[in-house]
Amino acid sequence: MSFSFEVEARDGAARAGRLRTPHGEVATPVFMPVGTRASVKALSAADLRAANASIILGNSYHLYLRPGADVVRQAGGLAAFNAWRRPTLTDSGGFQVVSLSALCEIDDDGVTFRSHLDGSPHRFTPESVVRLGRDLGPDIMMPLDVPPVPDRGAAETERANRLTLEWARRAVAELARTEGTSSTGRPQALFGIAQGGFTAAARRDSAAALVDLDLPGYAAGGLSIGEEKELTREMLQVTLDSLPAGKPRYLMGVGTPEDIVDGIGRGVDMFDCVLPTRNARNGQALTSRGPLNLRGERFARDFGPLDPDCGCEACREYSRAYVRHLVKTGEMLGGRLLSLHNVTFYLDLVARLREAIVRGTFESMRANVLSKLGENSR
Amino acid sequence: MSFSFEVEARDGAARAGRLRTPHGEVATPVFMPVGTRASVKALSAADLRAANASIILGNSYHLYLRPGADVVRQAGGLAAFNAWRRPTLTDSGGFQVVSLSALCEIDDDGVTFRSHLDGSPHRFTPESVVRLGRDLGPDIMMPLDVPPVPDRGAAETERANRLTLEWARRAVAELARTEGTSSTGRPQALFGIAQGGFTAAARRDSAAALVDLDLPGYAAGGLSIGEEKELTREMLQVTLDSLPAGKPRYLMGVGTPEDIVDGIGRGVDMFDCVLPTRNARNGQALTSRGPLNLRGERFARDFGPLDPDCGCEACREYSRAYVRHLVKTGEMLGGRLLSLHNVTFYLDLVARLREAIVRGTFESMRANVLSKLGENSR
Repeated sequence: MSFSFEVEARDGAARAGRLRTPHGEVATPVFMPVGTRASVKALSAADLRAANASIILGNSYHLYLRPGADVVRQAGGLAAFNAWRRPTLTDSGGFQVVSLSALCEIDDDGVTFRSHLDGSPHRFTPESVVRLGRDLGPDIMMPLDVPPVPDRGAAETERANRLTLEWARRAVAELARTEGTSSTGRPQALFGIAQGGFTAAARRDSAAALVDLDLPGYAAGGLSIGEEKELTREMLQVTLDSLPAGKPRYLMGVGTPEDIVDGIGRGVDMFDCVLPTRNARNGQALTSRGPLNLRGERFARDFGPLDPDCGCEACREYSRAYVRHLVKTGEMLGGRLLSLHNVTFYLDLVARLREAIVRGTFESMRANVLSKLGENSR
Repeated sequence: MSFSFEVEARDGAARAGRLRTPHGEVATPVFMPVGTRASVKALSAADLRAANASIILGNSYHLYLRPGADVVRQAGGLAAFNAWRRPTLTDSGGFQVVSLSALCEIDDDGVTFRSHLDGSPHRFTPESVVRLGRDLGPDIMMPLDVPPVPDRGAAETERANRLTLEWARRAVAELARTEGTSSTGRPQALFGIAQGGFTAAARRDSAAALVDLDLPGYAAGGLSIGEEKELTREMLQVTLDSLPAGKPRYLMGVGTPEDIVDGIGRGVDMFDCVLPTRNARNGQALTSRGPLNLRGERFARDFGPLDPDCGCEACREYSRAYVRHLVKTGEMLGGRLLSLHNVTFYLDLVARLREAIVRGTFESMRANVLSKLGENSR
């Protein structure tokens, strides 16, 4: 089975869709838990299935370094290697090259960098990243792109847009050249990543040029990197307005529950973020009534569930007092239970919003969800 | 339901029994996973049930410090607090007081120590430890005992034996005085701990004196603390020979798979050890063919299961190559999968030996098990 996307229902700008991939179907909007190094931190494949995850991410940069593309290829691809067995998406690695590696140098042909692990020299090109995607075997791969360095003006944004487009074209060509070489033996889709920094015109230009390539899906990249939330949302809207209605739209690396509600309202179909698992490891439960810091003394004798609205194993079986004890004593089970809950909460939230879109009640659901999310801070 | 023990089958000195506790039945011989701070490290209650654990340990010293006896009491006891809900045993805390705390001073009445966490002063007496057991609510509690300081001669051993016996008598009296005050509302059993250092006569004296108290079970304490394995086994045998056949016999803090096979052959009914979970966190799989260090390069492309003879989730779902990747990259799932496997391996090993005892084939099973355990080192 190959790749397809259809919009099944609309409510305002929000849409409910269905993405078909060779590893299974994904109902959209969808939140994709992040399995940076082929593991959604602290969670097993069974946990992710119990949480009703439908697609998870892997990070090309990290997997390239460890265990190495050849090991994942030999395993039969990422979804076989980590026993997930369902749809996967890999990012381009470009973001990690810029943010993690030492001595990163971008030229017109590609990017040279040193590993953050051992300083060893490496090079990614648009073509090598597609071949890496062939080895890793995700259903959806992202091309190597170039976000503009912030605050370097219009020339930098123009250069980044130009390279992002050229590299997307080269990735498309390499994808065609390497057809049939996926480690999974199944077809793979290549999305485009629209950049453009924080200028509306450059955002429009980047998206429009990529749309000409007629890719099976598009992402908004380079957002939520420290800028004001209003600016994020303005730039997101400009990008979304420039993308075709019939293709999936992916907002990369976003975000809080509120950000996801906002994005769905604008017609975003796919999200990924490390926030639920990262915050879990810091002792934070993300709940329908807002975040709870389980380190707080007030939970020491709170024998209620993390989130009374949640049916995950952590909320069904364990109390806030016990999870607090685990967090305070540094027991691994604490981060695990909070990760399971937080990921379940994100997935349930998006599933409920999808259902509201189908029923045409998205606006009232959004208002209810946002009001409740603010409860703990009122 | 109260506490009882019966031996159902014997094969040589080995025996298969059944321990009835207010939280459920325990088929013996049994391995008890250690949940030091109310969590068997990295494992959930569901994991432990899937591994067919029947009774788990909690550590009095650690739980007394965090979250505190009152929190566990308010939760309804240890088995409610950690959602295990089945039989539990708590140790006396004496071993941790001596090995972990600062400035531990033993007088005839009790032990004064400083917390290893914050240096705060605390005192345990035989009575306070029983009351702590009432708060923690285990089915079986161990009394505060006094292992002799090694290499201090006969007078020290005599003093330790005398205090261990006196304190056991005081614990029995306090147990009677506090009847009906368990946090679980259910009866609790108090075992005896036979000490005696590494002198056969002192071992016999300690056991015999405790047996006069007619306790519902007896442990061999003060073994496997660094002495030669031959000496451990000799002293264990002396202790076992001095204990009544109709009561459960518990070898505390032991040991390797080989030690457990040996102990079962001598008629030990209960074992606990942190080895399977501790070694898991260090990247070691304990298998039917001996230990495997998953950090080894030779596992990088080994797509077989951790242990082909094991049916646990880790072995069913994941490869050695993937677990190695998790261990090498420090992913929490690595320690979790290895903990699940190692605990399952211990529990399965003991269950298989129990079945052999029932069938009268213990000797051939032991020979097979030991031969196979040596395979990886041959």
